[in-house]
Amino acid sequence: MQRVVQRQKPSAIPAAIAASHLLDGVPQPVVEDILGQTHLRLVEAGTVLFLQDQDAASAYVIDSGWVKLFRETLNGDEAIFDVLTCGNLLGNFDGGASSRHRDSATALTPVRLHTIPAAVVSRHMRGCTELALNIIRINTQTSFQHSMDLEHERLQSAPQRLGCFLLRFCDGKPADQPVHLNMPIDKGVIATRLGMKAETLSRALATLKAEAGLMVQGSAITIPAPSRLADMVCNACSATERCID
Amino acid sequence: MQRVVQRQKPSAIPAAIAASHLLDGVPQPVVEDILGQTHLRLVEAGTVLFLQDQDAASAYVIDSGWVKLFRETLNGDEAIFDVLTCGNLLGNFDGGASSRHRDSATALTPVRLHTIPAAVVSRHMRGCTELALNIIRINTQTSFQHSMDLEHERLQSAPQRLGCFLLRFCDGKPADQPVHLNMPIDKGVIATRLGMKAETLSRALATLKAEAGLMVQGSAITIPAPSRLADMVCNACSATERCID
Repeated sequence: MQRVVQRQKPSAIPAAIAASHLLDGVPQPVVEDILGQTHLRLVEAGTVLFLQDQDAASAYVIDSGWVKLFRETLNGDEAIFDVLTCGNLLGNFDGGASSRHRDSATALTPVRLHTIPAAVVSRHMRGCTELALNIIRINTQTSFQHSMDLEHERLQSAPQRLGCFLLRFCDGKPADQPVHLNMPIDKGVIATRLGMKAETLSRALATLKAEAGLMVQGSAITIPAPSRLADMVCNACSATERCID
Repeated sequence: MQRVVQRQKPSAIPAAIAASHLLDGVPQPVVEDILGQTHLRLVEAGTVLFLQDQDAASAYVIDSGWVKLFRETLNGDEAIFDVLTCGNLLGNFDGGASSRHRDSATALTPVRLHTIPAAVVSRHMRGCTELALNIIRINTQTSFQHSMDLEHERLQSAPQRLGCFLLRFCDGKPADQPVHLNMPIDKGVIATRLGMKAETLSRALATLKAEAGLMVQGSAITIPAPSRLADMVCNACSATERCID
């Protein structure tokens, strides 16, 4: 069941949409037209947001909650490509007349979503270079992230892959102070996201508890110091810009 | 050693650039300006085309030969993300003033390259929506390819991954007739590209010879019928459009 919460007030860019960088530097009339047609929706855990190959009629920016992005093979196996949260953009803007989703997306928790009609964005992309360039930058970042995931799956140990996944949520936070994360996601989903078995994830978690002081209580995770986790992880990574400050 | 072969004649789009789809639907004056500043260069095997984090001063479309795209971790491990050939675009167009390469690229064989100044493309992207949309489409395809590689590394067997890699070069060819490929690439590079050990690749090759009738003589590979290879591979893939006709 989905519920429309409210139409956006066009004057201010909501924090989650600002965090997505979709509208960075876009002229005010275009921002107002897009936000004026954007709705904030609440969906329950388990809601299918879209399915692979469906028409990409809308794009979404997550305001709160967690979403999994996945695909299924003909054999019925599932590959989870990402687990997304506040500020992440979901959808497919290629400017085509009949874009289709390349993945499927399901809400893992109750989720608040900014729902943006794809047609509005596609139309403005043709007249507003800044919007097109923002989409290029977001796509480039996603593509880079996918290639980093591939690299890490080949070259990092399971504790390193789990540590890297957690460090992504420490972005912008001081490296030497505790970070508290709330991650109400089934461990099986995180294991599949990281391309490992549930038992491997459990062992990786035990290693991070012992070696980086990680604390876990239900869905609450405390990282005592991201820098200590980074010391375990980041030598086995080709990124030249550190992901934490 | 690099040698400038010739400046492009601006009137006609070279076949490899047409195959890259970079200039699809772009107005003639923009095409002529871009091609007028594009050079065809010949580089020897082993030439480093660019390194991760270098300024992305140029982009490249491969006219002939093979190039590997890779990154290195601080520990010195190498991850090969792709092995590219005729019609593939190399580079980073995000429209920024100081774009940097996210990967490194080295010629695996003698390579002929169309070298396009990034500044020319970035400038036209701001005035020509069609060019920006082409770049969005190429980036989206690359991103999709990376996520498919991740999926296949998790869900496909080694023979299936090798079969899928070979099928990509059968695109546009009849599915039930022999396809002859010339792939003068070290087996170790293909193994690293596919995230497997050299011995695993050898066993995978033996399986494809036995079960799909693959024939290999030096760098010449004959696939008796892509459809037969696809029968082995494509059930373990989430792509809903078949990669072969």
